[in-house]
Amino acid sequence: MANDRSPAQLHELLRTETPFTAERCSYQPRLCPALAVESSSTRPLPGFDLEVLKVAKEHLPFVSQNTLLQIVPDGDRPQDLHPRRVGIVLSGGPAPGGHNVIAGVFEALRKLHPDSKLIGFLGGPSGIMMKRYTEVTLPMVKEHLNSSGFHMLGTGREKIDTPEKMASCRETCQVLSLSGLVVVGGDDSNTNAAFLAENLRHVGVQVIGIPKTIDGDLQVPGLLPIPFGFHSACLAYATEIANLNADCKSDLKYWHFNRLMGRSASHIVMEVSFQTHPNVVLIGEEIEEKEFTIHNVVRLIADVVVERARQGKNYGTILIPEGILEFIHEINALIIKISYIIAAYNREAAPEESFHKLSFEDQVQLIDNSDIWRDYDSRVFLGLPAILQRGLLLPRDSHGNFQYAQVNTDRILLEMVATYLRKQRAKGIYKGVFRTQNHYFGYEGRGTFPTRFDCDYAYNLGFAAVSLLASGATGYMAAIRNLHQPVSAWQPVGIPLAALMHLEERQGRLQLVIQKQRVDLDSPAFKILAQERARWAAGDCYRFPGPIQFHGAGADNKPITLQLNSYER
Amino acid sequence: MANDRSPAQLHELLRTETPFTAERCSYQPRLCPALAVESSSTRPLPGFDLEVLKVAKEHLPFVSQNTLLQIVPDGDRPQDLHPRRVGIVLSGGPAPGGHNVIAGVFEALRKLHPDSKLIGFLGGPSGIMMKRYTEVTLPMVKEHLNSSGFHMLGTGREKIDTPEKMASCRETCQVLSLSGLVVVGGDDSNTNAAFLAENLRHVGVQVIGIPKTIDGDLQVPGLLPIPFGFHSACLAYATEIANLNADCKSDLKYWHFNRLMGRSASHIVMEVSFQTHPNVVLIGEEIEEKEFTIHNVVRLIADVVVERARQGKNYGTILIPEGILEFIHEINALIIKISYIIAAYNREAAPEESFHKLSFEDQVQLIDNSDIWRDYDSRVFLGLPAILQRGLLLPRDSHGNFQYAQVNTDRILLEMVATYLRKQRAKGIYKGVFRTQNHYFGYEGRGTFPTRFDCDYAYNLGFAAVSLLASGATGYMAAIRNLHQPVSAWQPVGIPLAALMHLEERQGRLQLVIQKQRVDLDSPAFKILAQERARWAAGDCYRFPGPIQFHGAGADNKPITLQLNSYER
Repeated sequence: MANDRSPAQLHELLRTETPFTAERCSYQPRLCPALAVESSSTRPLPGFDLEVLKVAKEHLPFVSQNTLLQIVPDGDRPQDLHPRRVGIVLSGGPAPGGHNVIAGVFEALRKLHPDSKLIGFLGGPSGIMMKRYTEVTLPMVKEHLNSSGFHMLGTGREKIDTPEKMASCRETCQVLSLSGLVVVGGDDSNTNAAFLAENLRHVGVQVIGIPKTIDGDLQVPGLLPIPFGFHSACLAYATEIANLNADCKSDLKYWHFNRLMGRSASHIVMEVSFQTHPNVVLIGEEIEEKEFTIHNVVRLIADVVVERARQGKNYGTILIPEGILEFIHEINALIIKISYIIAAYNREAAPEESFHKLSFEDQVQLIDNSDIWRDYDSRVFLGLPAILQRGLLLPRDSHGNFQYAQVNTDRILLEMVATYLRKQRAKGIYKGVFRTQNHYFGYEGRGTFPTRFDCDYAYNLGFAAVSLLASGATGYMAAIRNLHQPVSAWQPVGIPLAALMHLEERQGRLQLVIQKQRVDLDSPAFKILAQERARWAAGDCYRFPGPIQFHGAGADNKPITLQLNSYER
Repeated sequence: MANDRSPAQLHELLRTETPFTAERCSYQPRLCPALAVESSSTRPLPGFDLEVLKVAKEHLPFVSQNTLLQIVPDGDRPQDLHPRRVGIVLSGGPAPGGHNVIAGVFEALRKLHPDSKLIGFLGGPSGIMMKRYTEVTLPMVKEHLNSSGFHMLGTGREKIDTPEKMASCRETCQVLSLSGLVVVGGDDSNTNAAFLAENLRHVGVQVIGIPKTIDGDLQVPGLLPIPFGFHSACLAYATEIANLNADCKSDLKYWHFNRLMGRSASHIVMEVSFQTHPNVVLIGEEIEEKEFTIHNVVRLIADVVVERARQGKNYGTILIPEGILEFIHEINALIIKISYIIAAYNREAAPEESFHKLSFEDQVQLIDNSDIWRDYDSRVFLGLPAILQRGLLLPRDSHGNFQYAQVNTDRILLEMVATYLRKQRAKGIYKGVFRTQNHYFGYEGRGTFPTRFDCDYAYNLGFAAVSLLASGATGYMAAIRNLHQPVSAWQPVGIPLAALMHLEERQGRLQLVIQKQRVDLDSPAFKILAQERARWAAGDCYRFPGPIQFHGAGADNKPITLQLNSYER
């Protein structure tokens, strides 16, 4: 067919496997000393005050008695006499490193007994209830090691929140003769894990949770600095933001408004900021603390645009957390009232006349007529641009909750800043050119290849989970301390899940769930950010972490917020 | 301040330089044999038929006489007796590798004579006219080697298209005593280069163009397979698309509609498709050839969605070239007519009554009243969804041209597919769940770090430009043949710019410009794509090229279309 090319070479160009993916499979994640040894055991870890709420003690009487554990080398512990059968389930959105948790659990089980089996539930928690599973085999593990995604088993979002669902989980575990279950997920999934642990202990099934979420909002000070997947996702976003920085610094032409995934918390925006040094950084938690209105936020951005224009710089990058509206009191108050009004109206209305079948004008009229809608609310609402007004009226989710991530806050802020700048121009204060682009970065980060840090971290978490199972523990979350240090200094622990729970309003009623962690405004990382960003605003201090590297200097990248927060407070 | 951390380490975390950027600077690009030797010269390259249009001969009588040159090692050629003074200018959107062109020119000049000087014009071609420049120094070159962006000199889009502008360029070159000028840019910039060469020859200034554009539409069969920057940008996009593939295959939840930069041509979509194997690939040139209507395009996507839903797969990725509307005859006809109507109306209307001050309804009425608007046009227009109707009425650019890249074709196609699927559902044909996300990938690719391929390629182009200057050539574009082979087999050439020119309608009149290359439907790459994509549509054959790597297996990545097109036709 070809002059100097063979059909074999053509085939090579068109196949799905790449030299890159082949090489990724060959990386052997490093284990910390306590997990690398032949056998380990657990002992109490003193010095932390983990209080359990009274209501958690009532709902989780057994697992509430757990105390904090550290995993330590123990040469004396004999191997298992009998093979174990353990289940694993991936839950919630994909996070880079998920396949390495599976690999860690698999390898650690085989170390306990060569005939131990790992059962992977398919499609998330519903796989447990519906008995959809597969046995995880060595070829599967090898093929997926260090790869992206959750596709070895798939994932899902089912909550195990009724006695019937719990009963079907119990039945599946019994039918499969499982002695353990590892739940990989975020706050909701680890809430599942706590209740499963409580309810399955009578049938001899131990349950361990693994902290996963790219949002970074699953943290326990001093014990769980950051969940796995956060670092890789942040670096994927940072690559893009740095590319935009390079582009706008070259072409001197655009302001880029970038909205970043991360639910309510601004952890991702903070980490990406340290990785890239953008010109404006919005932190939701700070906006709430300072009681900023949306007009304050617009002003905050516009002031930087005006100042840079004065220097002849009509370009820059702005990072916006996707949950920002939740932190702006006046907007959030409107959202809550509108949600209530929509729910109340829809309860009475015929389906064909439901709220979102009405015209925009009728919707506004209906809200305006409500008893809970004050003159002040109207004034705030009418002062917003049309695009945001429409955003606030968007359909709620199936539980009646506002879907913050659905709102184009990047576009809304861009338009409000443009409006404000037109006024400043009329006053002669602003003389620049305001050309813009807006972006949303989210799903790409969930599907990126895990960094070497996340490859190692997730693999250690898998081993830690099995160590906890082997020591008889249940109702714990596996975690690794000292992540800011080299792997050789990492310390695996078991954190009692019950101690992480608090009461939260969900679907209109209080529920016992794992508490999400927002950005701590007293943390070293935030305080340093607050100092640094003035320099980033005025100058062009753009930082280039590079695309995620697996060899060479860039391969040692670690979360910067993690490292900063290791400094004393 | 810290327990185990020092202020020096804190400083390290906060500085702008990263281990990654430091390491990138240290990579020494490889030179092909003809450019690595102590001295080279040029000789005619036979076997290519490069005809020059009559009109080009008239406008460019001197440079039209150029014949194709190859650059060959020549040990006998003596070094320059006197130092040279050469200028360089970056033009158009940034492309990865630009700094390596500068480095190549700089190093090659120093090889000719150690005291030669390189003058960098600032902010694009206007820097020549406005005498804004800087001397390029060794520290500048070292600092920017292998880095992203064009920020060492900045860039711009000024065209040198009047006698006055040409005169000011001539004056600057004389004031600076330049004997040569290197113009780095796309089709328009190389058109500039041709006219500069023609007009500056009397003052002893030779002009050489360098083929740059991430869009990939600057090609000469057998001589210039692809411009520099294309590969890096495509891989940056491919990383993101592959991440979305990993995400949707894990979460089984979303159809991702991705619009990719690339102006009219679909080269980027084609390369990214081979790198990632998405489920639907739209190629503008094919849509034009097959005379597809927009409804055909919608149907083409929807059929894949329906078929995958039948297999239980309610997810996938779709690649859309940003110039797609230009290739859909019926839409493009509307666009041209509407542009004409807007221009005609605006010529008569007072500024406060200009077309885009009117309401949408009045705009439509005005169009409908035009003599050139037929009943057929109305029927087509009214059959389009509102979002596309509004898109077609968007403000034109300063030359009255429609701005294709401003239209959210990803969102438009998504909504049209959703509408079509609702009908298919009503008929019982479609039973899936259609959840979607839409994305635009553009500016990130322009600002990415250059791949090793582009680092080497751009560096060789810089050397080739100086070789052409040293041999006395002017009015040439430097290029490298055999890019699909290892650097050791690359062959530098000089392509006569006049032979690349054709007549094109610009701003309502015919102009002599470098011809852009669209995707060739007879090329091996397109033919193979047409075969492969049926497999990609139904299966999950997602391919992961990885984030751009600089070490290890992934670092040898080259454009796949380049390699496929090296097969015989």
